[in-house]
Amino acid sequence: MRYSEMHLPTAREIPSDAEVTSHQLMIRAGMIRKLTSGIYSYLPLGYRVIRKVEQIVREEMNRAGAQEVHLPMVQPVELWQESGRWIHYGKELLRFRDRHEREYCLGPTHEEVITDLIRNDIKTYRQLPRNLYQIQTKFRDEVRPRFGVMRCREFGMKDAYSYDADEAGAEKSYEKMFVAYNNIFNRCGLKFRPVEADSGSIGGKYSHEFMVMADSGEDAIVFCEKCAYAANLEKAEIGEPEKKNIAEKDWLSLESVHTPDACTIEEVSAFLKVKPQDIVKTLIYNADGKSCAVLIRGDQDVNEIKVKNYLGTAELELADEGMILKVTDAPRGFAGAVKINTRVIADYSVMNMINFVTGANKQDYHFKNVNIGRDFNVEAFIDLRVAQENDSCPRCGGKIKFARGIEVGHVFKLGTKYSKAMKAAFLDKDGQEKIMIMGCYGIGIGRTVAACIEQNFDENGIIWPMPLAPYQVIITPVNINEEEVMKASESIYASMLACGIEVILDDRDERAGVKFKDADLIGIPIRITVGQKNLAQGNIELKIRKTAENRLYPLQKIVEEVKALIDQELNPAA
Amino acid sequence: MRYSEMHLPTAREIPSDAEVTSHQLMIRAGMIRKLTSGIYSYLPLGYRVIRKVEQIVREEMNRAGAQEVHLPMVQPVELWQESGRWIHYGKELLRFRDRHEREYCLGPTHEEVITDLIRNDIKTYRQLPRNLYQIQTKFRDEVRPRFGVMRCREFGMKDAYSYDADEAGAEKSYEKMFVAYNNIFNRCGLKFRPVEADSGSIGGKYSHEFMVMADSGEDAIVFCEKCAYAANLEKAEIGEPEKKNIAEKDWLSLESVHTPDACTIEEVSAFLKVKPQDIVKTLIYNADGKSCAVLIRGDQDVNEIKVKNYLGTAELELADEGMILKVTDAPRGFAGAVKINTRVIADYSVMNMINFVTGANKQDYHFKNVNIGRDFNVEAFIDLRVAQENDSCPRCGGKIKFARGIEVGHVFKLGTKYSKAMKAAFLDKDGQEKIMIMGCYGIGIGRTVAACIEQNFDENGIIWPMPLAPYQVIITPVNINEEEVMKASESIYASMLACGIEVILDDRDERAGVKFKDADLIGIPIRITVGQKNLAQGNIELKIRKTAENRLYPLQKIVEEVKALIDQELNPAA
Repeated sequence: MRYSEMHLPTAREIPSDAEVTSHQLMIRAGMIRKLTSGIYSYLPLGYRVIRKVEQIVREEMNRAGAQEVHLPMVQPVELWQESGRWIHYGKELLRFRDRHEREYCLGPTHEEVITDLIRNDIKTYRQLPRNLYQIQTKFRDEVRPRFGVMRCREFGMKDAYSYDADEAGAEKSYEKMFVAYNNIFNRCGLKFRPVEADSGSIGGKYSHEFMVMADSGEDAIVFCEKCAYAANLEKAEIGEPEKKNIAEKDWLSLESVHTPDACTIEEVSAFLKVKPQDIVKTLIYNADGKSCAVLIRGDQDVNEIKVKNYLGTAELELADEGMILKVTDAPRGFAGAVKINTRVIADYSVMNMINFVTGANKQDYHFKNVNIGRDFNVEAFIDLRVAQENDSCPRCGGKIKFARGIEVGHVFKLGTKYSKAMKAAFLDKDGQEKIMIMGCYGIGIGRTVAACIEQNFDENGIIWPMPLAPYQVIITPVNINEEEVMKASESIYASMLACGIEVILDDRDERAGVKFKDADLIGIPIRITVGQKNLAQGNIELKIRKTAENRLYPLQKIVEEVKALIDQELNPAA
Repeated sequence: MRYSEMHLPTAREIPSDAEVTSHQLMIRAGMIRKLTSGIYSYLPLGYRVIRKVEQIVREEMNRAGAQEVHLPMVQPVELWQESGRWIHYGKELLRFRDRHEREYCLGPTHEEVITDLIRNDIKTYRQLPRNLYQIQTKFRDEVRPRFGVMRCREFGMKDAYSYDADEAGAEKSYEKMFVAYNNIFNRCGLKFRPVEADSGSIGGKYSHEFMVMADSGEDAIVFCEKCAYAANLEKAEIGEPEKKNIAEKDWLSLESVHTPDACTIEEVSAFLKVKPQDIVKTLIYNADGKSCAVLIRGDQDVNEIKVKNYLGTAELELADEGMILKVTDAPRGFAGAVKINTRVIADYSVMNMINFVTGANKQDYHFKNVNIGRDFNVEAFIDLRVAQENDSCPRCGGKIKFARGIEVGHVFKLGTKYSKAMKAAFLDKDGQEKIMIMGCYGIGIGRTVAACIEQNFDENGIIWPMPLAPYQVIITPVNINEEEVMKASESIYASMLACGIEVILDDRDERAGVKFKDADLIGIPIRITVGQKNLAQGNIELKIRKTAENRLYPLQKIVEEVKALIDQELNPAA
């Protein structure tokens, strides 16, 4: 397209309300505009990138056997009551009434609607498996939208839902999506990792998040230096340490110490002149109304998701003063496992500790030289803590490293949570009625675009990987008032269009510097510069945005060279 | 795709709540499912057709120089207050509050949002003209949704908005869209007419509706037998009749007649034994609070839009008893123009009447032998009535005929209605600030699909024109348990996929009759039947859905023949 006719309002200034790079660059490059809090319009340049992601997603979903549908954004209350989420979803679910005072919500996700479709139309195992997907607008009334389209309220999402007759089928469906997601993000030209994620109370070990690696990412992820293990921080497992032989002869005598005003690990550590690693922290939790003491080494933090999963509870929170008093007979800050009145579980970090410090279940007192087996027992040693860098890998024992990422996709084995609640049943081979097994699979389209920018930019602007570039080439005549220059530019432009290259001709009457700055800002992978001097030698300059590499090609060769370059970037394997 | 894997739930029964053919067939063919009143899900087959229409729309919009954007569906109250439509839009505008109690609506259209975008980013005439479009979901809270996706609440729409620096530019932008719309509906394989439509209080003579011709259409349209004139009924103009020479000697004496209980044309006509054509109806209107008498021949109906346009009023309604009494000194039913106390305008139908009957402005009395020029005068004779079949064409004098259509598109010259209210200004060449001139252009995507079905079906189901067909070909092995039959079917299937034909292989273990019925119902243009008998002769049967024509081709030729047939239907001109 001719730049002069494009609606492409670029800006030099960094918008004051944009915190992250992708947000700043998407506004400066004329890709998006904010309408109101968490709600954005896509301008032509931005929407071209969106459509490229959508097309890749569509092709890979179809290849994996999924079929595209389109479900409504306005959803009736009845279905959400059936699934139980009308009550549980919270304020992110935007609810309203129509002119007849009937209640609806704006769809934040579509498990209810699609399960309703499926249960009405699928009656027998012969119709299974099914995987239906859509690329559609969602609305989640985020309390604090931020980072542009990265965490907004209205956004485009690919959501897929699979229905299977049995567990084996459901695993196969999951695996297909896992492969499709890898293909999608590879084809988008992104550096990413699928990481294990917690699947919470829904159960099932299959849940992966697809993380685009970027220092600015909201999510912390862990990965093993040696093997392929990767997980998000909350899921990150820690390998069981080797059990050391503890010689009872090394146990010192239990000692009660007066520790006035020392409650926290820091205070106790300073007061008793011991390291935090020599203290065992005792946290009392309220798990569905019942108490439980969790022991962990003083320098570590409890990962409550792990506690919750181990206990199998729906709700978990730190106990209030009342429960602490009941369990320890003391106020908060002096809990310890010796003679405590509740079940006790301990993190692996406590397993090999001897002669440690804990609270004495008595105000202003701690015990020294506490030893497990003599002074108290624990129900189990398990993995209950937040992973730290250099922890040992749960798979191979290698060292765990940290990185940051942006979640762009999530594949999830739902099991029968929705199909059971909504009675999505079918007749099996043997004529028995069974409940379908579901999976759900999401990709944030706009977020994928933003994540791509977070991974591909420099001080001059965006650097699009070829597969997502809104245009592949920009032709920049240095001076549009020079006849020869414009003749050559127009001829290259026409040839490129003819062979299907997505190209901008910057026909604006602006200084070359201004045009170069805009080309860099909007991140077009290949810039063709047509200048009087090179042209006199029959040459055209080609600049690669990513490497800043400059090459000269004969005018007659330039289109062919560019075409080859593009094809190579789009199909690196070929 | 293999039929056995497709999510394509067809049905033989006509759904009880579907009134029109397209609605019935879209449900029976597994294209759509109702979620709730006026809200539908598209199943895979239906969505494929939607995407075909979208693609044609997109290509033609791009070719016309429009640029694709994507605007939010959730829109803030402030913009609608600026345009004044927050108050005026009525209950079709679905309003709600978010978690922070801020007010929003679900976008039924996007003039406000796009004008806000444009006014922020366009500053000078150098950035004009612009035409931005989107294909996006709209919500209009229809009081009584009906006819499936034809008149529903949530629907997909292509909406485009043009901004120009001057009237000449705006006309050019309009003309481009007019051409693009003709291309779009032609490419969709539809029989349609662009008809002149009323542009109401917004002014400007440029407004056209694109009507797909179908007997079941909601809209009445008129067209000239001889010339290209076509309009919707409310806009349909009527040519000025020739003025006859009226000889005053033929005027009979005015006569007051007692007409007890005769108010309506029928009653007066029966009582006085005259034809309705000999009576002049006098209607008193309240036009923005002022009265006006409209005269029309007794057998004709007033087209209030024409009255409104002539008077240039915002609101027009029939006068209440009070105003009638004030103007005529009599109750409703006896109004006449003789000595009436208000302005008087008359439809052309009254122009050549003499010695006619009117009300006498006195209860239970009418006048006979009334004559214009002697008994009263009129301000103007103009076109004020609803067109009737055989009226004279306003362009060529030919005869007007009626037809029914379904509105699938509307091109509209908006002028400065929104740009003025929202201050969308730019600096002109001479440094003067000016207001942009807008046009807007809509196409109902789902409605286009439904309209296509209303125009293309028979008792067996849908008959897709090739450009909108969800699949171009269906291969029907007569018996999947015959090895040779399946071998040939699979080989044809693979060859067709390889050359880009959109094809279904009906690999279901069903009787041939069942498969044929489904193929007819879902309307696939070409059916390939692979049966043992023909195959023994090396032949394959090809059936054209539209004509029911059967042909035999050698197995080796079948793919090539089908490909040629498809190409010809997609590019009939080539």
